[in-house]
Amino acid sequence: MKKTTIQLPNGMIIGGSSLTLIAGPCAVESEDQILKTAQFLKNQGIRILRAGAYKPRSSPHTFQGLGEEGLKILSKARKETGLMIITEAMDPRDVPLVEEYADIIQVGSRNVQNFPLLKELGQAHKPVLLKRGFATTIKEWLLSAEYITHGGNPNVILCERGIRTFETATRNSLDLNAIPVLREKSPLPVLVDPSHGTGVARYVPPMSLAALAAGADGLMVEVHPNPAQALSDGEQSLDFTQFEALMALIKPLAQHLGRAL
Amino acid sequence: MKKTTIQLPNGMIIGGSSLTLIAGPCAVESEDQILKTAQFLKNQGIRILRAGAYKPRSSPHTFQGLGEEGLKILSKARKETGLMIITEAMDPRDVPLVEEYADIIQVGSRNVQNFPLLKELGQAHKPVLLKRGFATTIKEWLLSAEYITHGGNPNVILCERGIRTFETATRNSLDLNAIPVLREKSPLPVLVDPSHGTGVARYVPPMSLAALAAGADGLMVEVHPNPAQALSDGEQSLDFTQFEALMALIKPLAQHLGRAL
Amino acid sequence: MKKTTIQLPNGMIIGGSSLTLIAGPCAVESEDQILKTAQFLKNQGIRILRAGAYKPRSSPHTFQGLGEEGLKILSKARKETGLMIITEAMDPRDVPLVEEYADIIQVGSRNVQNFPLLKELGQAHKPVLLKRGFATTIKEWLLSAEYITHGGNPNVILCERGIRTFETATRNSLDLNAIPVLREKSPLPVLVDPSHGTGVARYVPPMSLAALAAGADGLMVEVHPNPAQALSDGEQSLDFTQFEALMALIKPLAQHLGRAL
Amino acid sequence: MKKTTIQLPNGMIIGGSSLTLIAGPCAVESEDQILKTAQFLKNQGIRILRAGAYKPRSSPHTFQGLGEEGLKILSKARKETGLMIITEAMDPRDVPLVEEYADIIQVGSRNVQNFPLLKELGQAHKPVLLKRGFATTIKEWLLSAEYITHGGNPNVILCERGIRTFETATRNSLDLNAIPVLREKSPLPVLVDPSHGTGVARYVPPMSLAALAAGADGLMVEVHPNPAQALSDGEQSLDFTQFEALMALIKPLAQHLGRAL
Repeated sequence: MKKTTIQLPNGMIIGGSSLTLIAGPCAVESEDQILKTAQFLKNQGIRILRAGAYKPRSSPHTFQGLGEEGLKILSKARKETGLMIITEAMDPRDVPLVEEYADIIQVGSRNVQNFPLLKELGQAHKPVLLKRGFATTIKEWLLSAEYITHGGNPNVILCERGIRTFETATRNSLDLNAIPVLREKSPLPVLVDPSHGTGVARYVPPMSLAALAAGADGLMVEVHPNPAQALSDGEQSLDFTQFEALMALIKPLAQHLGRAL
Repeated sequence: MKKTTIQLPNGMIIGGSSLTLIAGPCAVESEDQILKTAQFLKNQGIRILRAGAYKPRSSPHTFQGLGEEGLKILSKARKETGLMIITEAMDPRDVPLVEEYADIIQVGSRNVQNFPLLKELGQAHKPVLLKRGFATTIKEWLLSAEYITHGGNPNVILCERGIRTFETATRNSLDLNAIPVLREKSPLPVLVDPSHGTGVARYVPPMSLAALAAGADGLMVEVHPNPAQALSDGEQSLDFTQFEALMALIKPLAQHLGRAL
Repeated sequence: MKKTTIQLPNGMIIGGSSLTLIAGPCAVESEDQILKTAQFLKNQGIRILRAGAYKPRSSPHTFQGLGEEGLKILSKARKETGLMIITEAMDPRDVPLVEEYADIIQVGSRNVQNFPLLKELGQAHKPVLLKRGFATTIKEWLLSAEYITHGGNPNVILCERGIRTFETATRNSLDLNAIPVLREKSPLPVLVDPSHGTGVARYVPPMSLAALAAGADGLMVEVHPNPAQALSDGEQSLDFTQFEALMALIKPLAQHLGRAL
Repeated sequence: MKKTTIQLPNGMIIGGSSLTLIAGPCAVESEDQILKTAQFLKNQGIRILRAGAYKPRSSPHTFQGLGEEGLKILSKARKETGLMIITEAMDPRDVPLVEEYADIIQVGSRNVQNFPLLKELGQAHKPVLLKRGFATTIKEWLLSAEYITHGGNPNVILCERGIRTFETATRNSLDLNAIPVLREKSPLPVLVDPSHGTGVARYVPPMSLAALAAGADGLMVEVHPNPAQALSDGEQSLDFTQFEALMALIKPLAQHLGRAL
């Protein structure tokens, strides 16, 4: 099966021989937080910044994201650093706006079977990163991807982020088995999100290495200048020092695997 | 905790001392199918008809529902029989239209954390039946209900419909434990859907009785004139004869429980 | 399929038209505790006392049961009250001893696939109550029962006690779907344990009624003179007042269902 | 926390800086099968042979293992090749016999909470490899290990082998998150069994590499001279050619990780 490769405006190719590393905070909280993080990541060699402007939160009483203001902050970060931007769309009505600002549009775990959203993204002109639902089978996940590809947008990136099981030592159970299963059943690039997949910052490095060794095309990792103050997902976010340490592990493994960064 | 009661235009009260029985096919397939089913259900004493015009389907290649045409067929069934109509909205953009036709708006299992949809329904003027996600905890489910009630619409009905587990003998594992848990934590009416909760028509009667004995405020059951020909969910739909047999079991149990039908 | 019926020395029949109610504490803690409970249960019309002398405990540092001393206490309770005794065997080497004292030998959830134990019980001359494993499918559970029946002991009683899922509001998710599934696939009597199935004493009554309405042949319920002081499972044990209240709910339902107690 | 290291009679150390590779068929089927496999594995640089003489099988109607005859065949393989032997004990009564033949005693997934067996092994003089139960939390698993270590036998090796989830594309969901969790909570060596963890031979190589990259102390892999003819677990067993290919992947990764084989 010929693998799907996806080219970004900065020339990067996702799904090819290079690994794709995406990093950034869970949510856009302020211009300062984003610009500081973007500059740090650029210096680390990262070329794609993640951060949510629209946040799917279990409770209506918690921070819901900055909305369009958040998108503008991300746009400013791209202008200042040259980083590509990935950010989430939750509402089909927001897709045109998100598409205007983002280089890759993310679909979060809870929206993996939000079919009106998927149909809208089938008509978008930006690549879509489709996270696995925390309780969707791989088969259902691939059918959700088909809503986008058959809708006219072939540029879908799959991202395993852990499934819900009985285990409580971790927030989710990262299902790395999904990597070889997807390789066999789909041409789409496969990334892994060890931050949601474990829910614990100190478990992110070993699971990042595991994902790459299993053959993932890259990683999406949560990084925050001050995880203890993060408005969401602080427990699973790396601080800058931890992220540098992670990069020091990833680089030699990537070289061993023969994959450029 | 004072229970929430919800009054429908035909005078029915959901969440009061009477039981609420909702029945009908998974999807609106044709006018003939709906009118025939509605007439049958009316004769059985049922006062609310269920059927989907917008269908969330795992695959983009299967029947996706008749859309507004389906809503019009449901409207005709109401006019001819006096049955109240419950039907699903999947897309926040469809809420005004669905609200125009429906007496109760349903949120399906896959959309339990579709927050833009929930926010839109918080501003609707019709009651909302919120199905449990197949992998949401009761706590998350109640937070999703809060998106609607705190948004301004107090009329939310909860519907347990089975959770995803390792067991494969049934389509889902009907979690009747949810009934006493919800009674303790929420004032909202609680219905049970034994059709999705088992996935097997012949298991629907015993689980219907179990749900009522556990204290549910009512049931939502799939009925189809010809389940073998149904475009979706045929395996779990009762035919008319089976539904009559179910009613013959429910009536004496309701009387035993001191709850009118 | 002709249902298996099992006759006890006191003339009771399990799996026939009468319901079987089993009650008692999780563990034998003292002679006083057991005799007091047995006397209370007898006055409530209960005819089978449950209590463990050998306790499977997750941690080696917690109470492990009184062993043979516990069996002797149970024997004394039978002598004083005429109640039949059900108690657990964990070790194949203990089967002859447990068999000597018990009227029914229980296999706990963690031992459902302890095949040497099941083989030993296939040669025992007492009925065996086989609890479902908290993560065994119904199919696997029935194969475990076959280890006993094909080994030469046809008198197996199945007991659903909840399965492990992602839900945390209850200790386990009571899978009442198992009742109709088992009815279809097996002739063996089916009991339900709502105490382990919920893990919360106040959820036991509604789930007891649900189990009977779904067609269970009876219940096994944890009762303790002072649940707050119980050495194990206190949170899910009913005290005497709560058990009386439960009986006041069960009796009219049993009558409604046409099943004697 | 000082890591536990376990020395075998051939001088190997498990849990030290070297990786431990265990391989062999699911079950001892014949002398020819075992001797052939042992010779092949020796040539591949493997120093520990796995194969079960006592087999826990879901159904009583399938192959149950050769028992003591199987142990004798394993003993012969050790004599001919110098490989160390790991084999399973299921019944506490068999522990002395298994201990006589084995260099490491295995406890299978279904027996992780078979407490009489664990207590017996606490008094054994051979190391014990304790597989994770397919539905036990990491916390419960470590408590089971304590039954052995507190019983007097400090030489316990943990082996992750996949947990039961809703996913059906693989036999189990290999929970590699367990590796960093265990590192933090326990000094015991941690191996991974990618054969049971996936249930599919062609997924074994990527998951083997993932396990090592995540920090596992080694692997246990099923190998069979002719998987299509295996009496159990054929689908997940590698043939000799596939195993050689796996070794060609493991060797450079081990070198990269700085761990000898």
